[in-house]
Amino acid sequence: MSEQMRAIVAQNAGGPEVLDLVQRPRPKPGAGEVLVRVQAAGVNRPDVMQREGNYAPPPGATDIFGLELAGTVEELGEGVTRFTRGEQVMGLVAGGAYAEWAVVHESNALPVPEGMDIVSAAAVPETYFTVWSNVFERAGLARGETILLHGGTSGIGTTAIQLAKCFGARVIATAGSEEKCEAARRVGADVAINYRTEDFVEAARAATDGRGPEVVLDMVGGDYMQRNMEVVAIDGRISQIAYQKGSRADLDMMPLLIKRLTLTGSTLRARPVEMKARLAAELERHVLPLLAEGRALPLIDSTFPLERVRDAHARMDAGSHVGKIVLTMMENHS
Amino acid sequence: MSEQMRAIVAQNAGGPEVLDLVQRPRPKPGAGEVLVRVQAAGVNRPDVMQREGNYAPPPGATDIFGLELAGTVEELGEGVTRFTRGEQVMGLVAGGAYAEWAVVHESNALPVPEGMDIVSAAAVPETYFTVWSNVFERAGLARGETILLHGGTSGIGTTAIQLAKCFGARVIATAGSEEKCEAARRVGADVAINYRTEDFVEAARAATDGRGPEVVLDMVGGDYMQRNMEVVAIDGRISQIAYQKGSRADLDMMPLLIKRLTLTGSTLRARPVEMKARLAAELERHVLPLLAEGRALPLIDSTFPLERVRDAHARMDAGSHVGKIVLTMMENHS
Repeated sequence: MSEQMRAIVAQNAGGPEVLDLVQRPRPKPGAGEVLVRVQAAGVNRPDVMQREGNYAPPPGATDIFGLELAGTVEELGEGVTRFTRGEQVMGLVAGGAYAEWAVVHESNALPVPEGMDIVSAAAVPETYFTVWSNVFERAGLARGETILLHGGTSGIGTTAIQLAKCFGARVIATAGSEEKCEAARRVGADVAINYRTEDFVEAARAATDGRGPEVVLDMVGGDYMQRNMEVVAIDGRISQIAYQKGSRADLDMMPLLIKRLTLTGSTLRARPVEMKARLAAELERHVLPLLAEGRALPLIDSTFPLERVRDAHARMDAGSHVGKIVLTMMENHS
Repeated sequence: MSEQMRAIVAQNAGGPEVLDLVQRPRPKPGAGEVLVRVQAAGVNRPDVMQREGNYAPPPGATDIFGLELAGTVEELGEGVTRFTRGEQVMGLVAGGAYAEWAVVHESNALPVPEGMDIVSAAAVPETYFTVWSNVFERAGLARGETILLHGGTSGIGTTAIQLAKCFGARVIATAGSEEKCEAARRVGADVAINYRTEDFVEAARAATDGRGPEVVLDMVGGDYMQRNMEVVAIDGRISQIAYQKGSRADLDMMPLLIKRLTLTGSTLRARPVEMKARLAAELERHVLPLLAEGRALPLIDSTFPLERVRDAHARMDAGSHVGKIVLTMMENHS
């Protein structure tokens, strides 16, 4: 095995063109970590934010891009007990997935269920961890409740639709075109709202006999923050996972009190390994069985070989994708 | 018994002078309700807001003021099982406590513990229900955590200090003068911050080795909303129970995400009777034993006979009170 590998970094902040394929030393697994020969890595919104210079890697993390991967365990660090050499895993990393090899803490990895392809596996960690953590744990979506989720055709959106349906909730999704609304419905949304032609507050109210949805999942922010508080039901919960339109707004927080709301939010990347490990254990228990049965599989928009990472990012920037964009490192030229 | 009683209403919105002593028919207990001969009623901030025209009674509630009372059960409505005639109770009502008789749903009343005086009992329901619901249930304050609470010498503040200490938390309270800080410390606060001379964000950080308090209890709103998000610890919870400085602000909600915060809030009055009943059951289990032992008793600032209600409200308006202001109806002239 060569001691060098191909990896993606950005020399500057900017558009997809700042992403470069470089040679980097292959990482070594530390205590509790496994070295994975990466076969596929998911592209996520935080990668775009990092590229634009708006989301620095947490302290200690590599500058190599990529937050999730799937591949084969090649080496075990000291004290690893969960996996053996040759096993296929999917894992969450604080950086380093856009590369031919990466180290993953064993507690932040899950076995790839039998029969699941490696591209789908690479599309699981970031979105499933995020959806599980924010929709089910933090916002406590329960069977029989309704969730309104924005970005219905994004990786997060499609996963949230599928998981919410699997766990017995009703789903209202917003999306930016009739085609995307149709796609959201195909994935399982009970109601899809084209936010360009309809006011989502009115439409979601109409779809819930005026009560509003019990849970809102939002990555938009900006003026959506007030509108989410307006539409959500009494005793409702709003989970914020990003601020694509900004985190700042002139807000009237009275609904928090009057409607007894809970506003919460989180990012995945900044969490300590132990916290992600707890989440991984939850996912293994509740979600891995669904994946093994072929239910709630991630929707794949497109795949690009690692060296075409700029095209992959350009596709996410364009915003017309439906589901996940995935990089593949099937052939190792190194 | 006369069919008329003395009661307090407001003919207009305004200062304490709009409060009038009037004659009203004595209410009759409906199913599940008890008729209480009121001996004392607590004065609360929402009463002031109602007087100012900013907090209308919920639909169906009486226009007689007052949200909490203590007294003797005189009549039982249909199906009442929790209490018998002659028992002393303290109860939460959606209105009607500033009067000689009031009806209370049996599920929203608690027995007055042996040895507890009736004035203290009348000062319990509103603040203890509010503190329990917001600090312990919604914000989940746990043993060993630190709570920052504003309005440290208000009825809510002094109760929150006492209960937080009883349940093993550390307390930082803010107040508006050295005298009030001293009073907050006497009630049990570990640290008291004079917000007129110190920046509470800096002071609370300094008092927590830079980590910030895990829980914030706020009734101020306005610019405090951003500052609460600034000071609260990672994974912190902020509970909002009023907006004395307004509910509107230009807010940067990024900390919600980055620090994985939970913002929540509630008002007590608007809740359905069943929800208050659940709270009452919790209080009976967790807090009544403390009251019976004489621990965490409400701090009484002053008492006024019912006919001096304007003086009682003027005292709350002046803001120099420490603890609860209570109206008494010891002598029934009717």
